[in-house]
Amino acid sequence: MSDCIFCRIIHKQLPAQIVHEDDFSVAFEDIHPKAPVHVLVIPRVHIVSLDTMREGDKQVLGHLLLVAQKLARERGIAETGYRTVINTGPQAGQSVFHLHLHLLGGRSLGWPPG
Amino acid sequence: MSDCIFCRIIHKQLPAQIVHEDDFSVAFEDIHPKAPVHVLVIPRVHIVSLDTMREGDKQVLGHLLLVAQKLARERGIAETGYRTVINTGPQAGQSVFHLHLHLLGGRSLGWPPG
Repeated sequence: MSDCIFCRIIHKQLPAQIVHEDDFSVAFEDIHPKAPVHVLVIPRVHIVSLDTMREGDKQVLGHLLLVAQKLARERGIAETGYRTVINTGPQAGQSVFHLHLHLLGGRSLGWPPG
Repeated sequence: MSDCIFCRIIHKQLPAQIVHEDDFSVAFEDIHPKAPVHVLVIPRVHIVSLDTMREGDKQVLGHLLLVAQKLARERGIAETGYRTVINTGPQAGQSVFHLHLHLLGGRSLGWPPG
């Protein structure tokens, strides 16, 4: 069994409120939501972080953004607006080392972004 | 001449502190930096926002993330950490309607991201 909690969510070994699944990605509710909509979109393949992303991962990373777009539409925040965030490493607060895209919306989001 | 200020930067019709250029993307310093490193990475093609992104744009969007990774390494923030952010629409504060990826690092970035 993988030590990675996101791999375990993908393989249904840990519970999560999954909102989207396809051949390349899984999306589920953030357990500590910071906005009315706060979903994590992750690749099925275990990519540690943006820093370990390779040339061949471009398509799957682009796919995560397209899934975020779709979820934003489904949640009714496509027109009001939304922010997508990827944290890499300690100063950004990356806490799970399986690359994940945060989708936040449903309220006004301040600037700077942290 | 395009009305889009980012298209004008791409075509060297407006000045910017450009830090990277390739066939698919241009990156330049944010004129209102919110961190010691604050760069914008944009596609050469005029994509209005993540909401208008299409299936065929996946590769170029993934490419923007790979450029951010490269710039993070060049600036010495790959190990300390960095955040990549895309704002879409009014509640996220998108102010230029040419899709752009913010790369921020060089300091601790708080949570939530706005």
